[in-house]
This record gives sequence, structure tokens and C-alpha cells, in this order.
Amino acid sequence: MNKYNICLLKGDGIGPEIVNEAVKVLDCVADKYGFQVNYDEALLGGSAIDAKGTPLPQETIDKCKASDSVLLGAVGGPKWDKLPGKERPEAGLLGIRGALGLFANLRPAVIFEPLKSASPLKDEIIGDKLDVMVVRELTGGIYFGERGRREADGEVEAYDTEQYKVSEIKRIAKVAFEMAMKRNKKLTSVDKANVLEASRLWRETVIEMSKDYPEVELNHLYVDNTAMQLVINPGQFDVILTNNIFGDILSDEASMISGSIGMLASASLSDSSLGLYEPIHGSAPDIAGQNIANPLATILSVAMMLKYSLNEPKAAEAIENAVNKVLAENRTPDIYEEGKNKVTCSEMGDLVCKAL
Amino acid sequence: MNKYNICLLKGDGIGPEIVNEAVKVLDCVADKYGFQVNYDEALLGGSAIDAKGTPLPQETIDKCKASDSVLLGAVGGPKWDKLPGKERPEAGLLGIRGALGLFANLRPAVIFEPLKSASPLKDEIIGDKLDVMVVRELTGGIYFGERGRREADGEVEAYDTEQYKVSEIKRIAKVAFEMAMKRNKKLTSVDKANVLEASRLWRETVIEMSKDYPEVELNHLYVDNTAMQLVINPGQFDVILTNNIFGDILSDEASMISGSIGMLASASLSDSSLGLYEPIHGSAPDIAGQNIANPLATILSVAMMLKYSLNEPKAAEAIENAVNKVLAENRTPDIYEEGKNKVTCSEMGDLVCKAL
Ligand SMILES: CC(C)[C@H](C(=O)O)[C@@H](O)C(=O)O
Ligand SMILES: CC(C)[C@H](C(=O)O)[C@@H](O)C(=O)O
Repeated sequence: MNKYNICLLKGDGIGPEIVNEAVKVLDCVADKYGFQVNYDEALLGGSAIDAKGTPLPQETIDKCKASDSVLLGAVGGPKWDKLPGKERPEAGLLGIRGALGLFANLRPAVIFEPLKSASPLKDEIIGDKLDVMVVRELTGGIYFGERGRREADGEVEAYDTEQYKVSEIKRIAKVAFEMAMKRNKKLTSVDKANVLEASRLWRETVIEMSKDYPEVELNHLYVDNTAMQLVINPGQFDVILTNNIFGDILSDEASMISGSIGMLASASLSDSSLGLYEPIHGSAPDIAGQNIANPLATILSVAMMLKYSLNEPKAAEAIENAVNKVLAENRTPDIYEEGKNKVTCSEMGDLVCKAL
Repeated sequence: MNKYNICLLKGDGIGPEIVNEAVKVLDCVADKYGFQVNYDEALLGGSAIDAKGTPLPQETIDKCKASDSVLLGAVGGPKWDKLPGKERPEAGLLGIRGALGLFANLRPAVIFEPLKSASPLKDEIIGDKLDVMVVRELTGGIYFGERGRREADGEVEAYDTEQYKVSEIKRIAKVAFEMAMKRNKKLTSVDKANVLEASRLWRETVIEMSKDYPEVELNHLYVDNTAMQLVINPGQFDVILTNNIFGDILSDEASMISGSIGMLASASLSDSSLGLYEPIHGSAPDIAGQNIANPLATILSVAMMLKYSLNEPKAAEAIENAVNKVLAENRTPDIYEEGKNKVTCSEMGDLVCKAL
């Protein structure tokens, strides 16, 4: 029997409750598909600051590295907002991405058929369906370049460095091309090559690599144009490939267009099979501990984990199907619609298990 | 009688035809409000490349500097897309911004009542109205920082530098605070202070300055969150203040949400009264020379010029009112709706003049 060691980073706010439901579901599919899961837990973000005085204790890095995969709830909250940058919960998130080499961030923005009416876009704009996969570079660019303050013309200047090496662009582009091959073979590479040198190298490198993927239809869009196109014609996109900062902005925009932010999962992958999986929504401190959070994005993150890290595609698909089935009748408050059953966070977890 | 010298940069594609209509309208209001306008013309972008071998001839800079204000059509087109970065039409645009010190870019995103149905967002998302003013820093940040290629770990690395000095942040923040005072006294400063040092200095400086504007309600949003909020609740914004690159992305997103990109004007202001005014849409080479382009964004750019550079607020208002009146019945093809008059570019100019 296959055995997997999963490190849980429950995090802050609603993190613990949603991770608990995802674990429940993971145990159910493990049972059904005949594998075993062992869990370890570690601290990240605010809870780590409170307990250890740092958002990313070394122990957390060690435990993650020793695991087959990592499931994260969410980090952050007003309690830690006044701390200086490097000591904040988000620093833990950036730190773990770097420490585990999680260079590829996959953020699907999909509209779930039963939740179609939740999109802020008009029906005729959405069209038949929305199913965009944003592939965001996650351990390079302006997030990890040199930054600081210096004197310039007798005053203070702050600076950050956007930077990409050819090898960094190649490895993320490879992920995107492979992804496109498994989907509709359309890849949109997003940059600002009319201004940025890093974008020009990005574009050159992607074009060079496209020779290895003759079946993939590649096009290039500027980031400003992409921000527009997502709003007026999101259906044109299959896979979007972009850098760290543009990916941050565009993946959030794309997820909002789906209208189902409480439903969206994400994966952060490394060179090995070790990945980190998390819902794209935040820690929602205002509703923490009330058992009303929507655990489906975290449950779907487990499905991504089964697909990309644990090589259990059938179990992944089973979860996705179960979620769709449950959604037809049952809703947590954030996605509630008249005529449906209003359920709690833990009830939602139970329902998905039952549907499996 | 007041006399103004206007430098026209007609540019490429539909540029010449839309500028011609805007000049027509400017002559009409000049007549009516008792001032005189003299025109000079200069080359920018593709047309300058063709005639002079450079997208921004020195003569163009000189003529602009000698004028009271500059009206630009649009630059660019597929003909020049293959040229290297520095020789492309866009380089002319960036160059003129720098040469004239146009540090403040104002991009209003409004929904014109008669065009409300054109927004891609659902009516209930738009709510009563959309009237956002994006104030974008235009001569600093990653657009103007050092860039290049270098060797790193034995391979090529490309880099760009995001950078802001306190004085640069102060002068653009001042524009935004003053703007908010004249509008609904709400200012949203957008940054990525949880990651970027330049954003942290940005935020500190804006907070410091807010003491001089106690009536303005200031809040801070991360750029990724702003990209989301624009899609799900654009009505929350009054004035948005942001840096060059985030402003590029967010102002385009905001303008698309209005659904009226053919209608939106922009102003780029300097320390003096000299400003550059242009529609936010592009040069639309596919429809150039057919007399079907929508000249209203350029006509409304003239209204902005009258307001911000020429201190003729009554003439500005007259143009805005005339445009609204004409829109009720008449439409160019891009904004055509059943039951309205379909008119050409030049007819639209005539109609606005008549309505004045
Ligand atoms: C919290 C923040 C540093 C982070 C990012 O910008 O990467 C977040 O917005 C995300 O997208 O995961
Ligand atoms: C053409 C390009 C360089 C320019 C910019 O990025 O500033 C354009 O997108 C704009 O917003 O005016």
C-alpha cells in the first residue's frame, strides 16, 4: 500500500477549520483508493510568530522537506499587520516558497457550473465556460531581487529589482507548455516587453522553447492588455504563463471573474514531486472559529495534490466529482443561493466524504 | 483675447482622423467662449520613424515645449512591431513623457449613462455609477530605472529597476490628494508594500502627506486586491493613486470595466501648465482611414486640456455636455446600439460642434 507523509500548515484565521475538513476528505479517498496518509503539523505565519517569534521557523522548513507534500490553510490577520515587513506572516509564505524551491504556481480560475450566476461578468461575456490556468513564476522576479534604500540626489530612494535568468524562464515555461499540451494547447505568455528588459528576455526564451511544442498555439500579450481581455473576453484563454508580480495581479483578477473565490485551489510545485497546496482565498479572520467558512477550495487543493504530487489521479477526480455533486444542493454561507441547503464548514466536509 | 498654442501629434493609424475632429470641436468652443487657438504639428511614433528614422525627433520635443499644450492621437501599428525596443513607436511615447516631465497621468474611468449597458459587468455590480479617477505616476518607477542584461551564475540575466524617491512620490500624491478634494474626498493608494521596498516608501510617504489633507479619507490596498475589487465592487473607488507599472495595468482594467474604451480620455501633467492629452485607446490600424473611428475620447481629451492646462473650465464643461447630448441619439460603429443613428467619425465631430 502506498504511504504518503503530508505536512499540514494550518496557519491563521479560518486555516485550521478548513484544513481539518480537507484532511477528513483526504482520509476518505485514501480509504477508498487504497493508500495511507500520515500527517505531521508545523507552524507558519501568525501562529508561528506567536509561538516562536518568527513567521517561518527552521523546524517548519525541515518538516516540509521531510514530507511528500504540504497542505496549507491560510496565513495572516490584523493582529500581525503592524509588524515590520520581514516579521509578518506573509514573509513566512514567501520564505517557504523560496526554501522549498516552489517555482511554479498553478492557479486555475474556473466557473463551477452550479455557481455560474456568481460571476460579476454578464452571461454573454462569460459565454459557455471559463477555465483558465494561470501559471505564475513564484521564486524569482521582483519578489526575490535585491531591494533596499539608498541616497539619490540628496534624498531617500527605495528600489527593487525585477530579474530573470534564462534558466528560470525556461523551467516555468516548460511547466506551462506541458500544461497546455494536457489542456487545449493554447498558451498566452504575458509580459511587458515594450518596456522591460526582463520581459524581452522572457519573450525571446518562450519563443525559443515553443519550437519544442509545435502543437501549442502560442501568443504574447502585454500585461495591461491582458488585464483588459480578462474582463471582456476571458473565454479566449487556456493557459496563461507569466512572471511573479504580473501573475500575482492577473491570477487574482481571473479568480474574481469566476465569482467563486471560496472555491479556487492552487498548487506550488518544485523540481521534485514535493508541492505546496493551498486555497487562493485568505485567512478571513472575521469569520474564524465560527464553523461557517467554505472548505471546498482547500478540499480541491487536496485534489490538486493527489494529481500533481502523489500521482493518484483517480482519487483526485473522485474528489472533484464529489464536490460538484455536493454543490448542486448544498452551500456554505459565502456561496449561498435561495433554494439550497445552508451548511456549515464541517457539514460540507462530511457531505463531500459521503458523496465519495 | 486669450491665445493658446497647441501642438498636435496626430500619430499613427486612426490618430490623424480623430485629432482632426477634436480640432474641429476645439475651434467651435474657442469661437463660442472667446479665445483663439493656433496649431502646430509634429511627428511622433511610427510616422516619425518613417519620416525621420526615430520615434521621437528632437524637433518634436522642441515644438511641444514651445506650446501651451499637446494633443496626441495614438501611436503604433504592426508595421513597426518588428523593430527593436528603443526604435519602436512606444519608445517615442515614453520619451516624450520623460522629455516634458509629464509625471502625472490622469485616467478617468467613467460610465456614460447612455452607454451603461456596454459594461461587461452585471448591472448590480456596477450599481448607480462608475466614476473612478486613476492617478498614475508616469515618469518614474520601473519604466525609468536602470535595466539591462548581465551574467549571473554563468548565464544571461535580464533586469529592471523599480525605484522611487520621496520627492517623486510626494509630487504625484499631491496631485491625487488635490484631485480627491475636488471630488468625493476618497483616496485609495495602491501598492505592494507586503513585498516591495519602493511600495513601503510609497505608503509611508502617502501616510505622511495625508496629514495635510485631513478631510480626505485615505486607504491602502495591495495591487492584487485592487485588481479583484475593480471587478467585484468598482463603485467603492473615487481616486486611485498608484505607481507607473501598477497604474498601467489597473487603469486599463478600470477602463474596460466601463465598457466604453472608445470614450475615455487621459491627461498627462507636468510641473508647469504644459500637459499632454490623448485618448486611452490605441491607434487601431485595422480601421484607419475609413472614417469610422470614434473621435469622442479625443474630443473629451480636449475637454481635459481646457480644464487642466488652459484654465477654460466652462468650455470644458460645454464639450462634456455636448458629447452626452449627442450620444443619446448618435453612435459610431464601436458603440452602436439598435435604434440609434449610425454616424461616421467626421459626422460625430460635426454633431458635437452643432450641440455646442
Ligand atoms: C501575501 C503575498 C505576499 C502573496 C504574493 O504576493 O505572492 C499573495 O498575494 C499571493 O498571491 O500568494
Ligand atoms: C505603450 C506603452 C509603453 C504604454 C505604457 O505602458 O505606459 C501604454 O500602455 C500606456 O499605458 O500608455
